[in-house]
Amino acid sequence: MRPSVHNPLLADLYQFTMMQSYLDRGMNDTAVFEFFVRRLPRQRGFLMAAGLEQALAFLQQLRFTDEELSWLTGCGRFSRDFVDSLARLRFVGDVDAMPEGTVFYANEPVLRITAPLPVAQLVETRLINILHFQCLIASKAARMVLAAPGKLLVDFGLRRAHEAQAGLMAARASYLAGFGGTATVLAGARWDIPLYGTMAHSYILAHDNENEAFLHFARSHRDNVVLLIDTYDTERAAARIISLAPVLAREGIRIQSVRLDSGDLAEHAFKVRRILDDGGLHDVRIFASGNLDEYQLQDIAAREAPIDGFGIGTRMDTSSDAPCLDCAYKLQEYAGVPRRKISEGKATWPGSKQVYRRYNGTMHEDILTVDGDVQDGEPLIRPYMRDGKLLAPYPDLAELRSHAAAQLVRLPDHLRHLKSRPAYPVRVSPALRQLARQVDQHIATF
Amino acid sequence: MRPSVHNPLLADLYQFTMMQSYLDRGMNDTAVFEFFVRRLPRQRGFLMAAGLEQALAFLQQLRFTDEELSWLTGCGRFSRDFVDSLARLRFVGDVDAMPEGTVFYANEPVLRITAPLPVAQLVETRLINILHFQCLIASKAARMVLAAPGKLLVDFGLRRAHEAQAGLMAARASYLAGFGGTATVLAGARWDIPLYGTMAHSYILAHDNENEAFLHFARSHRDNVVLLIDTYDTERAAARIISLAPVLAREGIRIQSVRLDSGDLAEHAFKVRRILDDGGLHDVRIFASGNLDEYQLQDIAAREAPIDGFGIGTRMDTSSDAPCLDCAYKLQEYAGVPRRKISEGKATWPGSKQVYRRYNGTMHEDILTVDGDVQDGEPLIRPYMRDGKLLAPYPDLAELRSHAAAQLVRLPDHLRHLKSRPAYPVRVSPALRQLARQVDQHIATF
Repeated sequence: MRPSVHNPLLADLYQFTMMQSYLDRGMNDTAVFEFFVRRLPRQRGFLMAAGLEQALAFLQQLRFTDEELSWLTGCGRFSRDFVDSLARLRFVGDVDAMPEGTVFYANEPVLRITAPLPVAQLVETRLINILHFQCLIASKAARMVLAAPGKLLVDFGLRRAHEAQAGLMAARASYLAGFGGTATVLAGARWDIPLYGTMAHSYILAHDNENEAFLHFARSHRDNVVLLIDTYDTERAAARIISLAPVLAREGIRIQSVRLDSGDLAEHAFKVRRILDDGGLHDVRIFASGNLDEYQLQDIAAREAPIDGFGIGTRMDTSSDAPCLDCAYKLQEYAGVPRRKISEGKATWPGSKQVYRRYNGTMHEDILTVDGDVQDGEPLIRPYMRDGKLLAPYPDLAELRSHAAAQLVRLPDHLRHLKSRPAYPVRVSPALRQLARQVDQHIATF
Repeated sequence: MRPSVHNPLLADLYQFTMMQSYLDRGMNDTAVFEFFVRRLPRQRGFLMAAGLEQALAFLQQLRFTDEELSWLTGCGRFSRDFVDSLARLRFVGDVDAMPEGTVFYANEPVLRITAPLPVAQLVETRLINILHFQCLIASKAARMVLAAPGKLLVDFGLRRAHEAQAGLMAARASYLAGFGGTATVLAGARWDIPLYGTMAHSYILAHDNENEAFLHFARSHRDNVVLLIDTYDTERAAARIISLAPVLAREGIRIQSVRLDSGDLAEHAFKVRRILDDGGLHDVRIFASGNLDEYQLQDIAAREAPIDGFGIGTRMDTSSDAPCLDCAYKLQEYAGVPRRKISEGKATWPGSKQVYRRYNGTMHEDILTVDGDVQDGEPLIRPYMRDGKLLAPYPDLAELRSHAAAQLVRLPDHLRHLKSRPAYPVRVSPALRQLARQVDQHIATF
């Protein structure tokens, strides 16, 4: 069976049971679904939109192979007519969304699908799966970018990302949010993200001693000599660098940087910087890694530790302090009638919506309203796809990255400083409140 | 380029830079690497091994396509000889590991690779990526299984799992650990995991009212009528069920269960149970979902709420209270010489190791020792692959699941009750301590 990324069976069973029922009753009218985050995690003051490119690709490639159809037939849950209808199924709907890199807040639609009910329902789980993860990671990475101004940040997280695809998409989402590169080769091959990487401790250990390991590496990688110096004793290794540098210089090889990976990184950096400077190696840069997050980056910045770049792994790739968002993909309208659920603590705003953002130097407030109720400010949701076709070539990652950087510049000050309170104001327009009341009056008549 | 799961470029750049250097120096002797967890998250008293099947498949399928090789050539970092050597590269080493479903603790090797240094190094990141995630999820899911004895637990987490592959593997790992099924269709298609699923709130909302939605669904799915009753008002919906049941019964349709998805699940369950019982629907079961974790399951069990099964999503699929493990894949031996790093707080036990488990009714203590130092107790690490070939057909998931269930039965009592302290005793043998001292004496001579 096809790998999971483009396999439409990567869905919840209920999508198929609902679709069977929609077919039985001829419920094929237009539905509007929106993807949004109900509440921000308490450790987040803003979120960043990401994953739209993959969401659009998923919709464009949506189709069932014979193998998948025959599994659906064989499982015994569905009618022949239904499986036949899936053979012809394509996504022919509309997509409106916030551009990737846009900062967003609770209850704001990030993506809207307008399509016949069955197909709009089928794509629910995988769309959430794509958007949730990249929004989660871009939002976490953006905080790190804000905490380490002017520093090179590199994604080192593949190994502890949640399986293959998460590692790959974390490289993309973090680069979008302002990281400078990744260690994940496939992400470099796929999106031209700058690649970084040198050696593991195992490289040092495989040699008889550290000196030998450093020399071998430098001679194999004359243009990219970055040496890991914490395998045994960080400062003794820094001293070795001083004695090796002239040997290598005679061979025309310059040591570019050293990497610290354990202990108090700021403290080691001060000591190592002094050792290097005393040895005349002012140009050798210091790179640090080891379970870093935005708070440690902020602390290192506050201490003015002489670290030039950081490798950031697990805590970014898993968004470890908030590894999920309370997000949803909800039916807002069907057959022209606005809808909302009113389950306890989970009520949603009905109808097709737009978000207007007002600036006052920085972001000042957002207005959430019904689509078509034009307000002052910048409308954040834009058209991307009509009748299953992209309206324009999708922007490249560099362009999205510039947009993200411009968004971070316009954040309110306290959100730039990692604070999540007070919450950014998102006002609900009178028109939207009125619509919700109408829907509730209808519900009351059941 | 190939999808990520089997693409060997899904690796850190440093793996390739190290390999280039190993080739330059002819460093092709046998290396021993072990995968282990340094420390358990404070919320975990034990972990469960998982992911070995995928790890073995990755090793068996390891090879570079022309496209991948030409990318490596074109990136300008590597020599022609090196890229040529990759074209011939296969995994021809040995694998020893704990069977999937085995309970394990800190510092115990879960998997050992014995292979020529370059290939053993190449597979580092993806092996960690595979094993880390499934161990993480199986360990979390096992806690939920322990907290809800006798209840049906179903994985609902695909949407908020970290991208596609994580959702799929979470379905596998949770089933291994004792879940009864999943909502993820592809996981059912791939591993024959029982599938569960009915309807979303959008299904209810797409109809003019709840009655109509319930009737339509029941008529489309006569053999599997599970109705979601919290879209508007849970108890009013339960009352509707009472009036619909005789209508459906006349058509030969029986309502199997209702699902609660919001509010205080236990409280609603008591009320709904009474409504159903008063209406004579004693056989209709109650299924609940909504951000559940093992503590809520334990609370619901303690309150003896009449809930028959649970859908468990985000908190299991992201292991949200501990979304990563402090795990590593470390060089233990190269060219017959044991190795270890002694970085601050990250020192490792050197050499090729074995774990012996002693029982006293339940698990009593583990002994970590050098491989070959036979001890009393059950050796946990077993041979799976020699010279790149599997020694036996890999067991099916049902068999692994039985092993996992038997392991949970033998947990010490306090670990069965979700407590993580006192830590389970893992003793380091005199032979292993002696080996570490020898390695350190060698390091001191550098």
